[in-house]
Amino acid sequence: MSLLVVGTVAFDAIETPFGKTDKILGGAATYISLAASYFTKKINLISVVGDDFPSDHVKMLNKHHVNTDGLQVLKGQKTFFWSGKYHNDMNNRDTIATELNVLENFNPVVPEAYQDCEFLMLGNLVPAVQQQVIKQMKTRPKLIVLDTMNFWMDIAMNDLKETLKMVDVLTVNDAEARQLSGEYSLVKAAQKILAMGPKYLIIKKGEHGALLFNKEQVFFAPALPLEDVFDPTGAGDSFAGGFIGYLAETKDISFENMKRAIVFGSATASFCVEKFGTENIVGLTQAQVEDRVQEFVDLVQFDIALV
Amino acid sequence: MSLLVVGTVAFDAIETPFGKTDKILGGAATYISLAASYFTKKINLISVVGDDFPSDHVKMLNKHHVNTDGLQVLKGQKTFFWSGKYHNDMNNRDTIATELNVLENFNPVVPEAYQDCEFLMLGNLVPAVQQQVIKQMKTRPKLIVLDTMNFWMDIAMNDLKETLKMVDVLTVNDAEARQLSGEYSLVKAAQKILAMGPKYLIIKKGEHGALLFNKEQVFFAPALPLEDVFDPTGAGDSFAGGFIGYLAETKDISFENMKRAIVFGSATASFCVEKFGTENIVGLTQAQVEDRVQEFVDLVQFDIALV
Repeated sequence: MSLLVVGTVAFDAIETPFGKTDKILGGAATYISLAASYFTKKINLISVVGDDFPSDHVKMLNKHHVNTDGLQVLKGQKTFFWSGKYHNDMNNRDTIATELNVLENFNPVVPEAYQDCEFLMLGNLVPAVQQQVIKQMKTRPKLIVLDTMNFWMDIAMNDLKETLKMVDVLTVNDAEARQLSGEYSLVKAAQKILAMGPKYLIIKKGEHGALLFNKEQVFFAPALPLEDVFDPTGAGDSFAGGFIGYLAETKDISFENMKRAIVFGSATASFCVEKFGTENIVGLTQAQVEDRVQEFVDLVQFDIALV
Repeated sequence: MSLLVVGTVAFDAIETPFGKTDKILGGAATYISLAASYFTKKINLISVVGDDFPSDHVKMLNKHHVNTDGLQVLKGQKTFFWSGKYHNDMNNRDTIATELNVLENFNPVVPEAYQDCEFLMLGNLVPAVQQQVIKQMKTRPKLIVLDTMNFWMDIAMNDLKETLKMVDVLTVNDAEARQLSGEYSLVKAAQKILAMGPKYLIIKKGEHGALLFNKEQVFFAPALPLEDVFDPTGAGDSFAGGFIGYLAETKDISFENMKRAIVFGSATASFCVEKFGTENIVGLTQAQVEDRVQEFVDLVQFDIALV
């Protein structure tokens, strides 16, 4: 079994300048798994929900090649709920409600059948919990990707730094890279963060694209210019899902292949933001994904013959 | 004679988080001409200065293949002066002083020897003045590129719209594209602006790169991630200068060649911001420019074989 995804499965209520939703399916692990499913067919999910979580959502995930044996359903409890409202520029949002519910005492247990997964994607969670997952793996995965956020830098920086020593790839946004490193220049920030443990760093800049760094190289992929960005929720997780899904399928973790993985991740994220929630990353065809990737190629490729 | 550059030649006093300068050489036409000089050797300048303008600056421009016969020197008058202070993020700045001086009654006269230039770059100026230059050309140039800014959209929108009908390429930043079109989405903004006259639109996004649109295609080039951005002054003009310099030399105005021109423009701009004012775009070697372009290739090129 190849890819293990750990993170939240949630209900979100979202308001953007284009409309608002009732409680819809959300959560980092949901977006990651759905996005990864366009590239690899062996996805294992670890998360927790309450018994208010509809079985239709579970069936939809299964249809997307997601094994949900590791999805704990806690009786008499409620699923994690987040509600937020985006500003007009879509780059900032206010959190209106966060109800941790089942997440409050989430203690992920890695089923034995998952313990030899070669690719591990740790969605945003308490750093100590992310660490527990790594420790339960029987063999060290070929690649561990960790996503985190400014919140943990504010309240659990030491735990986060310990966890960073155990992973291969860190994904953060530009503001978080600056906070974690204390450097404004992203080039300097990257080198400081790479000295903390991860061999690769991905800095997500939202509509301004993403940067991939190792100690010697840097690669940049833009976000696709879109007619409308409807709802940015899940864009970063869809990106991460496409990225690790592609790597898990190709089993090639060279920098060159990570560049391709970044492009596939960006393509998946570009679908995500075109509709509310997960709506636009459920049931895509291979042809749709490939057309989108071709748009990326057309957007950035040029031909310069240097003397 | 091939490229004609019209715009300001000025003194700037600049303050950034990294330091401040006394009056140094600045002005849109200065940056454009210097940047273009790395790609083409036939540059003609039209601008105006006072008799306080040092002849050393003129000699330096001449050394960079810039013909200054069209540089009016007004006796007893002072050169245009601008002073500004950048915020910590370098994306915003406050204007501290603007002394128009010689610019107040600038009436550009196109010398006869310049009237058949094939490439015309109109740096940011009063739209009505930009229009006068076009009308003085004996034969319609092969390509007219116009730069403008939000200020003219605020106070001279009608003149600007008239001028837009006469040009081939418009360069503005993202905020200006939104203001001009009334659209937030840059994709929608581009289509509205292209309906106003220009066949091509370049949207400059500063540290987030630049987009080139025509009605059917879009190309994106990032800004090079730099260790330090010292002073953003002149970055947009250096970009435009590299762009039109490359086009003037290759005489190929296809979309494919404009993509290359954008990359050369971005490379030139990346030098500009590494030091104060024009300091870092004077006296570059071809090898330095080519190394920088290679960094762009390495930054964005990837190899995906789609089925």
